[in-house]
Amino acid sequence: MAGSPRRAASRRLQLPLLCLLFQAVTIILFAIFVRYNHETDAARWHWGNLSYANNEFYFRYPSFQDVHAMVFVGFGFLMVFLQRYGFSSVGFTFLLAALALQWSTLVQGFLHSLHGGHILVGVESMINADFCAASVLISFGAILGKTGPAQLLLMTLLEVALFGINEFVLLNLLGVRDAGGSMTIHTFGAYFGLFLSRVLYRRQLEKSKHRQGSIYHSDLFAMIGTIFLWIFWPSFNSAPTALGDTQHRTALNTYYSLTASTLSTFALSALISGDGRLDMVHVQNAALAGGVVVGTSGEMMLTPFGALAAGFLAGTVSTLGYKFLTPVLESKLKIQDTCGVHNLHGMPGVLGALLGVLVAGLATHDAYGDGLESVFPLIAEGQRTARSQAIYQLFGLLVTLVLAIVGGSLGGLLLRLPCLDAPPDSECYEDQIYWEVPGEYENEAQGPLSVEEPDTRA
Amino acid sequence: MAGSPRRAASRRLQLPLLCLLFQAVTIILFAIFVRYNHETDAARWHWGNLSYANNEFYFRYPSFQDVHAMVFVGFGFLMVFLQRYGFSSVGFTFLLAALALQWSTLVQGFLHSLHGGHILVGVESMINADFCAASVLISFGAILGKTGPAQLLLMTLLEVALFGINEFVLLNLLGVRDAGGSMTIHTFGAYFGLFLSRVLYRRQLEKSKHRQGSIYHSDLFAMIGTIFLWIFWPSFNSAPTALGDTQHRTALNTYYSLTASTLSTFALSALISGDGRLDMVHVQNAALAGGVVVGTSGEMMLTPFGALAAGFLAGTVSTLGYKFLTPVLESKLKIQDTCGVHNLHGMPGVLGALLGVLVAGLATHDAYGDGLESVFPLIAEGQRTARSQAIYQLFGLLVTLVLAIVGGSLGGLLLRLPCLDAPPDSECYEDQIYWEVPGEYENEAQGPLSVEEPDTRA
Amino acid sequence: MAGSPRRAASRRLQLPLLCLLFQAVTIILFAIFVRYNHETDAARWHWGNLSYANNEFYFRYPSFQDVHAMVFVGFGFLMVFLQRYGFSSVGFTFLLAALALQWSTLVQGFLHSLHGGHILVGVESMINADFCAASVLISFGAILGKTGPAQLLLMTLLEVALFGINEFVLLNLLGVRDAGGSMTIHTFGAYFGLFLSRVLYRRQLEKSKHRQGSIYHSDLFAMIGTIFLWIFWPSFNSAPTALGDTQHRTALNTYYSLTASTLSTFALSALISGDGRLDMVHVQNAALAGGVVVGTSGEMMLTPFGALAAGFLAGTVSTLGYKFLTPVLESKLKIQDTCGVHNLHGMPGVLGALLGVLVAGLATHDAYGDGLESVFPLIAEGQRTARSQAIYQLFGLLVTLVLAIVGGSLGGLLLRLPCLDAPPDSECYEDQIYWEVPGEYENEAQGPLSVEEPDTRA
Repeated sequence: MAGSPRRAASRRLQLPLLCLLFQAVTIILFAIFVRYNHETDAARWHWGNLSYANNEFYFRYPSFQDVHAMVFVGFGFLMVFLQRYGFSSVGFTFLLAALALQWSTLVQGFLHSLHGGHILVGVESMINADFCAASVLISFGAILGKTGPAQLLLMTLLEVALFGINEFVLLNLLGVRDAGGSMTIHTFGAYFGLFLSRVLYRRQLEKSKHRQGSIYHSDLFAMIGTIFLWIFWPSFNSAPTALGDTQHRTALNTYYSLTASTLSTFALSALISGDGRLDMVHVQNAALAGGVVVGTSGEMMLTPFGALAAGFLAGTVSTLGYKFLTPVLESKLKIQDTCGVHNLHGMPGVLGALLGVLVAGLATHDAYGDGLESVFPLIAEGQRTARSQAIYQLFGLLVTLVLAIVGGSLGGLLLRLPCLDAPPDSECYEDQIYWEVPGEYENEAQGPLSVEEPDTRA
Repeated sequence: MAGSPRRAASRRLQLPLLCLLFQAVTIILFAIFVRYNHETDAARWHWGNLSYANNEFYFRYPSFQDVHAMVFVGFGFLMVFLQRYGFSSVGFTFLLAALALQWSTLVQGFLHSLHGGHILVGVESMINADFCAASVLISFGAILGKTGPAQLLLMTLLEVALFGINEFVLLNLLGVRDAGGSMTIHTFGAYFGLFLSRVLYRRQLEKSKHRQGSIYHSDLFAMIGTIFLWIFWPSFNSAPTALGDTQHRTALNTYYSLTASTLSTFALSALISGDGRLDMVHVQNAALAGGVVVGTSGEMMLTPFGALAAGFLAGTVSTLGYKFLTPVLESKLKIQDTCGVHNLHGMPGVLGALLGVLVAGLATHDAYGDGLESVFPLIAEGQRTARSQAIYQLFGLLVTLVLAIVGGSLGGLLLRLPCLDAPPDSECYEDQIYWEVPGEYENEAQGPLSVEEPDTRA
Repeated sequence: MAGSPRRAASRRLQLPLLCLLFQAVTIILFAIFVRYNHETDAARWHWGNLSYANNEFYFRYPSFQDVHAMVFVGFGFLMVFLQRYGFSSVGFTFLLAALALQWSTLVQGFLHSLHGGHILVGVESMINADFCAASVLISFGAILGKTGPAQLLLMTLLEVALFGINEFVLLNLLGVRDAGGSMTIHTFGAYFGLFLSRVLYRRQLEKSKHRQGSIYHSDLFAMIGTIFLWIFWPSFNSAPTALGDTQHRTALNTYYSLTASTLSTFALSALISGDGRLDMVHVQNAALAGGVVVGTSGEMMLTPFGALAAGFLAGTVSTLGYKFLTPVLESKLKIQDTCGVHNLHGMPGVLGALLGVLVAGLATHDAYGDGLESVFPLIAEGQRTARSQAIYQLFGLLVTLVLAIVGGSLGGLLLRLPCLDAPPDSECYEDQIYWEVPGEYENEAQGPLSVEEPDTRA
């Protein structure tokens, strides 16, 4: 099943050569441009003569670690649900995210934080790089099992660049607020991946349908991903916000929103199934929509009630999407969305952006007091009214959608380059093309166990 | 096996309708009563003009995250040991805990922190809600596999209310100290669940005995739960204590206690087994008893020696309980305790309460200095002697036991309502009643692995 | 397969008796020597009249928790890759680490922090004890599957003592810098284990070769260990450093180094395999080498570029080691290294030490400013030049290697005592000797599933 010699040969070389090339380039660029910032540089920090207790590390690193766990454990294991694609799901997540962390440090640095020709790095840049990696992994979810590692590396290269540009346009040029990334991370990642998947449409994919489902224990592995994403999402949305009450409030809002999306997911999953049974696909994914939907408004005065209502809506929409929309996307729009990222990140992301429009439009000095400065600085400084901020928020969503759709389509064309190794339609969702895969229990038969089994089963 | 049409129909509707009803009610109650506290409210926080560094978020949120992981990852996966009940174990843990977080925010708010008709929420209420969820999951462990989700939702509703009342009586009315919840969380949750299980006694349960055991990899999944509970327990016991030395000391005591319960568990497990082999059930559960047993005294001047001794005792008692007591509970007292919560939470919880009585009775101004105020405020203020505090601690245990026993029994009667969907005796510990369950290795037969299959199934 | 009655009897008693003996001894020693330090003692802390915000707990506990997770989750699950040794891998990790935490508190206390005849404990001693446990688990990896629990407990007892001595010589006597333990943890643990394995060489080990490989889902469990080690490694290296910029910088350097070792591991793994497929063994292990290689220099002004270059080199060397060196070690040097610790901890540890020599030798007042005091106090105080510090660093590596080699060899002789229970050559890598092991899917055949299977498999 190793395919024709040519494919085997190309496969043999594309992944390693791209890894080595990218790594060589980033090492050189790091040498030229990347430096410690004043919080991580020994001389600069002590020059400031500050108490160690003021170092930003102590206010953001715990949140960073939670985000880091979400990216590598959460996304990685969530995608292990495929019965024969576990190595690739967790392994390629590992590879793509590692590349994205380096590459986005450079891209975001060039765009956001170039000081005297140098990119200054610290815990904030670490968080931002992880956010970009999360967006790449969302896109990965849409094409999971249908692309080779070389294609995925190129996708990462392109998406990280476009992610940085979109983020720059929204946050820096338009003054849009989007701490938890409903727009910049979820909407962008989802639609980038969906249009990429559209361009890579496979008419013959049913040849691999028998491998597209889960098995009992692969669903349990996937729940590891789900639960770690769920518990740490409050840290995800609050990691980059203003310190103090804002970070605190964002975590609280996300926490409540997630509980509501969990309840609505279980309710809807049982309601829409023929026989009242729950569907693991819904629980593994839709229950997380509450984190996505407050990505923009979580730092605002959403109120605990608003967080619950938003989460409930997101879980409902997401579950219905898995049941009714995903099949239509494939049959009508020719978008094959392996993990249903449209339901978990796409629609909830757009909803989150619109919720941000609403809550921003309702912002008042009474409600925020002097805290207005940390959430809506432009309103606090009188440069904008709440209404105009809301309009900017809406515009930010449109920019994100356009960039994601154009970028994803271009990415699809790039990945279709015939020279790139892609799995045949009959070998999608299959680890054995890219990994040395051990058998399952193969050896027990020969081992003492075969003899033992009667005893152990008695 | 879907059962009679009537049962199927009721099953189809009970879970979703209860979820939707509860969610609708909590959303309304949140809208009326729940508000940001002065640490999460933009206007109020900045009114105080405090430095962001003083926000309680930075002193409690890392501990909260560890507690959150224990509730959803720890409890969820610990119960996956059952070979055919993994989806329900981790899935219903997810559902019940999510509901408990919302509902206990309201119950605890009404009882503890109603300010001007409003429940003010922040990281402390998040921790307290997670603690209540933990107690519900302990009870869940006693009846695991023998109840339907609708029954579990009603149990949660009742238990959260009684948990809040018990906690209020102990901490607010009796001035009992119980930071880590040896009484309020473990003793209460365990005996509530055990008496609930007693009322739900199933004479014919052996019809499902073949599904009650673990299989090799389900035991490995359960170890994920065990290890996460074990490593984060120091954060659990210290999360709600006074800040500074008290929180620090509590984490340290718990850390040492757990190492000792682990050693005694391995020792006893090998000693009591016929052939000297270790039993995973003991390692997965009894090794955690060290965290339970210092739940009350962990914040006190227990001394590192005391922590080790307590942990050693707890691990010993817990392991012996699994071996000798659990069978008797079922045969003699008709209490079917699926996860052996009596051994992990019941007995160690009571031991922990008694240890608290002892250590509180030994409290002196010499030993605590000005720190007495943060551990035993009533003694520091001269309202109580150490001896009287000890008596109050003992009384607190009795109140907890009474409330748990009465509440659990009432809960059992509630759950026996004939209208509620419960699995038949022959279908306990079975996911397929409530979940769409994929086959195991269904497709490998077609994959390259197919060659192996005959052997592996022999 | 339970072996002769004599062996069975000895097995029955050695593990529990050693556990009970060790626990009794440590409890007594704790009672005599171990006390709360001024950060955990109620009276002493309040005597100081400090704000709770200054308690070291808030600056080190989050890092401690990450380290704690690495030791118990990371190391434990990383070794679950063996198809029939999962219970022992995660279970003995649990047991050995728990013992090591207690025992190293005493050893390190006697050597480093004896104040007025008392060992004072707090979060720093917790971190140091976990570091020692990590070193023990590294050695465990070299002999995994070939030793009984009694042997492992004795190894722990000896290694913890020697670890403490080596650490004392390097850090206290030689003034060597090694925050993340490239020398004290990784090099020491690896070579201690390798020489121990050498002395325990088994000529007939191929009798268990069929159990030495992984199976599909055991590799996924192992990835849980890998990913948790990978994400938390920045906390591992930074946990014990000076607070402020140093801790911040160390985490940042480790973060970048790991991304580079991941890329080089994927590249090399595909390059060196015959058919371009990736090898899970490499991904699970070599990708972590980036954390090991900056263990010494991570706190220094390594620069982000330096971190990437170091990580890239470490991943390359480690992957090549798995492919080409491990077989030679076994065939030529008679060193059977189950987990390939020589590739993950040995060579990268030595490389990390040498990198520390280089970076220390390049230290200048310009580069560190007043921060020089926290990284190289002896240079800052003028007692040493950068060059002499570099020489001391190099000498520290030699001392570590000598102590590890001598200690490991002695350990091997100790473990060969005929009275100790060891598995026969034909029963290595087998849980059933030490654990009551359930069958795999035993009951499905009898359960309702058998009826269902046709449907669920359709």
